Amino acid sequence: MPGGTDQTLRPFLWRAENLYSDTEIVSRTHEGIERYTYEEYSDRTAQLAHALTDAGMGEGDRIATFCWNHHRHFETYFGIPTLGAQLHTINPLLPDEHIQFIVENAADKAIFVDPSLAEKLAGAYDADSFDSVDQFVVMGDSVPDLPFDAVSYESFIGGHETEYDWPVVDQDQPAGMCYTSGTTGKPKGVEYTQQMLWGHTMATMTPQGLGVEDDDVVMPVVPMFHVNAWGMPFSTTAAGAKHVYPGPSPEPEDIAQLLEEEGVTITAGVPTVWLGLQEYMQAGNEVDLSELETVIIGGSAAPKAMIEWFDEYGVSVTHAWGMTEMSPIGSVAHLKSGLAEELTYDEQIERRAKQGLIVPGLEFKVIDDDGNEVPWNGEDFGELYVRGPWVTQEYFQRPEANENDFEGNWLKTGDVVTVDEDGYIKIVDRAKDVIKSGGEWISSVELENAIMANDNVAEAAVVGVPHERWQERPVAFIVPVEGADPDAVADELREQISEDYPKWWLPDDFIQIDEVPKTATGKFSKKDLREEYADQDLVEGQVPEEAAPDEE
Amino acid sequence: MPGGTDQTLRPFLWRAENLYSDTEIVSRTHEGIERYTYEEYSDRTAQLAHALTDAGMGEGDRIATFCWNHHRHFETYFGIPTLGAQLHTINPLLPDEHIQFIVENAADKAIFVDPSLAEKLAGAYDADSFDSVDQFVVMGDSVPDLPFDAVSYESFIGGHETEYDWPVVDQDQPAGMCYTSGTTGKPKGVEYTQQMLWGHTMATMTPQGLGVEDDDVVMPVVPMFHVNAWGMPFSTTAAGAKHVYPGPSPEPEDIAQLLEEEGVTITAGVPTVWLGLQEYMQAGNEVDLSELETVIIGGSAAPKAMIEWFDEYGVSVTHAWGMTEMSPIGSVAHLKSGLAEELTYDEQIERRAKQGLIVPGLEFKVIDDDGNEVPWNGEDFGELYVRGPWVTQEYFQRPEANENDFEGNWLKTGDVVTVDEDGYIKIVDRAKDVIKSGGEWISSVELENAIMANDNVAEAAVVGVPHERWQERPVAFIVPVEGADPDAVADELREQISEDYPKWWLPDDFIQIDEVPKTATGKFSKKDLREEYADQDLVEGQVPEEAAPDEE
Repeated sequence: MPGGTDQTLRPFLWRAENLYSDTEIVSRTHEGIERYTYEEYSDRTAQLAHALTDAGMGEGDRIATFCWNHHRHFETYFGIPTLGAQLHTINPLLPDEHIQFIVENAADKAIFVDPSLAEKLAGAYDADSFDSVDQFVVMGDSVPDLPFDAVSYESFIGGHETEYDWPVVDQDQPAGMCYTSGTTGKPKGVEYTQQMLWGHTMATMTPQGLGVEDDDVVMPVVPMFHVNAWGMPFSTTAAGAKHVYPGPSPEPEDIAQLLEEEGVTITAGVPTVWLGLQEYMQAGNEVDLSELETVIIGGSAAPKAMIEWFDEYGVSVTHAWGMTEMSPIGSVAHLKSGLAEELTYDEQIERRAKQGLIVPGLEFKVIDDDGNEVPWNGEDFGELYVRGPWVTQEYFQRPEANENDFEGNWLKTGDVVTVDEDGYIKIVDRAKDVIKSGGEWISSVELENAIMANDNVAEAAVVGVPHERWQERPVAFIVPVEGADPDAVADELREQISEDYPKWWLPDDFIQIDEVPKTATGKFSKKDLREEYADQDLVEGQVPEEAAPDEE
Repeated sequence: MPGGTDQTLRPFLWRAENLYSDTEIVSRTHEGIERYTYEEYSDRTAQLAHALTDAGMGEGDRIATFCWNHHRHFETYFGIPTLGAQLHTINPLLPDEHIQFIVENAADKAIFVDPSLAEKLAGAYDADSFDSVDQFVVMGDSVPDLPFDAVSYESFIGGHETEYDWPVVDQDQPAGMCYTSGTTGKPKGVEYTQQMLWGHTMATMTPQGLGVEDDDVVMPVVPMFHVNAWGMPFSTTAAGAKHVYPGPSPEPEDIAQLLEEEGVTITAGVPTVWLGLQEYMQAGNEVDLSELETVIIGGSAAPKAMIEWFDEYGVSVTHAWGMTEMSPIGSVAHLKSGLAEELTYDEQIERRAKQGLIVPGLEFKVIDDDGNEVPWNGEDFGELYVRGPWVTQEYFQRPEANENDFEGNWLKTGDVVTVDEDGYIKIVDRAKDVIKSGGEWISSVELENAIMANDNVAEAAVVGVPHERWQERPVAFIVPVEGADPDAVADELREQISEDYPKWWLPDDFIQIDEVPKTATGKFSKKDLREEYADQDLVEGQVPEEAAPDEE
């Protein structure tokens, strides 16, 4: 059969280490700023591969990370998949039970954990769920006190050869894995094959994607545990550009400092990050943004005011939309050819704030309640379906979810959208009831189940309401059982949820109602609740600062 | 098994027709300038698919074109592969026997032929070799007198539905085919799978490839029978950009007119084309190049003087290298990050005139005579080996060539190269003795065999010598048998070759020698002959203008 070689990540690494051996990788770590070149990166990646091989890990094994954005985490990005193994990035902001489920479901052989996240991992640790894990590695040169045996990353890779005779890996081999939190039940695993990551890398490198040139300096603030930091560690390497990693829990001043000192040209993150930078600068801190060209915003909708604010600094906001199931980039809100001349500035901002134009290589359709495709008129809406070479066609070991969330080779995104005459997709509602706070998912259904487990609660619904800083926050509507004191019930629930879930899952408000409104088919009508709540004032400051997911 | 959908060309067409329905496709044809939009393009492509289906053609069938660059040829570019069939572009400049061999070897089911090339095809036609061909279609709305039945393209597609329910096509399905002329024996077929063309399209869209944005206006002057016009019809569509096709035998004034009137921003062709434009402008014809941003030069090395000349007009020459076996782009001579500041202008030109930096996704190595990899020092040389997702791993039905030209999954390019410290590849010699005149291959071995078939010739060698206009021209060295009159032999050979081969294959000179110099292993040492000839003056004007391959 004719054809070229398989599409794998290894040649991207090969090209960077050979053509751009002097280009830098800069990393803010627990120990300070680290700085080295692709040459050293390649050496250390080979050492990591030797260490894993010696520890009995290789093709087909799932190896997890529990880390922020830094050079060691980046070393696992090529070191693990290029060995034929599978890089499984775990979101450390999840509830403990989710982490337990994920580790057990993925049967991870090893976990690489940050020192600052070791306590969180230790809290989630239980011997049964973590039974598959043979090796814990702490990202640094020492190991804190932990309920499991661990080695330091530097001792793990130290002393190994700096060349590795990489195996030939099939393009269908899973290379990555990430879990997505849905509305119901346990998180769902999405596997990324070598081919999916290859296609996503190429597509995001094009001008129609995110666009990366070899003289760019790329800083993903979006966590590397979030769908491979939108693929930027791969695309930046394939382009031979300089990497900057902002390390654990970066504060606005950390981000500002790296932007300035490293000459970052492209950065990426959720809106909350940029609101933080905006507030920092508005508080009188001067930040030189003259090198910065592009801020990629995703994870939640880019507010128009934010696009305008960056425009004033000559920084272009590129709004992108995607999903864990899509590796993740699906659409990018570039201004199409011609529109810059045709439209007023306000009209341009309106387009740029939409979810955008589908990336070359993907297809979509929008299906209404009757199963028909809706016209592209900016008004009619329906559920967005997508498919393509980097869109998964199944969840890992979840037949019932596969039945619900896929139709043939189409992924049903759960987003309700309009498409305008120019082809810009805009999310207008969410079919699946999840809440997105600061770029992180909160399962409304899981909170409802927890609340309804309380004997004094008859019915409950949790909805996401708009929030200036976190884009969306959960609010609980409860129907207490007859005779129960609503305030006492709310206090009980606050305590109970605070114990069982990350503190940023705690609803901002518990509102007593007589009955949860229902749809014609008897389902909870959250749309009505959201609209009802929109008329009330949300008390700003109710969410404690430290409850913010990106500052946990 | 996890994974996304197969990588096929169809979603590129879908995206252009839906997101860029109003964007233009402009075509210089035998009947004048045609102009329509992606919307109409999509309609006509569907009509073509219906016509082919009705004629009994579909998945797996090879369908040939024998055409210049115009909108109808472009319609076959998506209409044929998206049906699951295989677009086989035949080079009409080849000798008749090669065309016969190619049609028979590929077993083409149909041939689409330009009116201006119908006579050439009729000359090559013989019922045996063309036995597989059920349908001839002439590109226009009428049919000239031909030795075979034919229909006009417009009557072939006319009246059919403008929507087609495209089949699901496997990414391993061959989508394209092109023959390459080697040094020995018959042309060799290279098949392009859907996945190869998908990967090539994505890679060439990146800034590290050729780079295409949706506001570009792209005019491939490189013929569409030359490895899909370097993939530009695909990448331009995937980007949603405007296409301009310069039609049959474009003269410098045609090219100049289209550049100006259509606002072309990116164009591409062999050096001879740009020499023609240069001469045209130097003869006093004013051409406005202010819209033109990039001239992609490939097929033969880009002369430094040409890069400098375009620089004066603010037009950037992008020198690219590739092969039929590589879909075809392999390397592009972009100036790397940092080098613009580090190097003098002359040093920059020197880099930009090299074959360049390998495109992301591919790998290469350079192997010396002892089988060792040579260091990247700009001095040591060896044969260039390449591999990657859009580099073929075999020739069509040619086991003996596969044995010679591949080693594992590496393609042995036959080019002898150096690689400098920055990774720029430079071709310094050709291991396979082919001659490249005006971007077209001439087989030295085939000419030698033809010459040695003459009873008055004892030994002969044909070599390529540098030529200002055509980059290279063939010169024959002959050893007449004892007693033969060298001048009479040369005259006989001229007549004989003129009859059997295209006139531009005729050697510029027949030089009598006593013996062909041999290498240590007894092979003809063409290197010595080339050096010997370099001391002589090549008589300019010896090649008649009309013998030029791109004006035939």
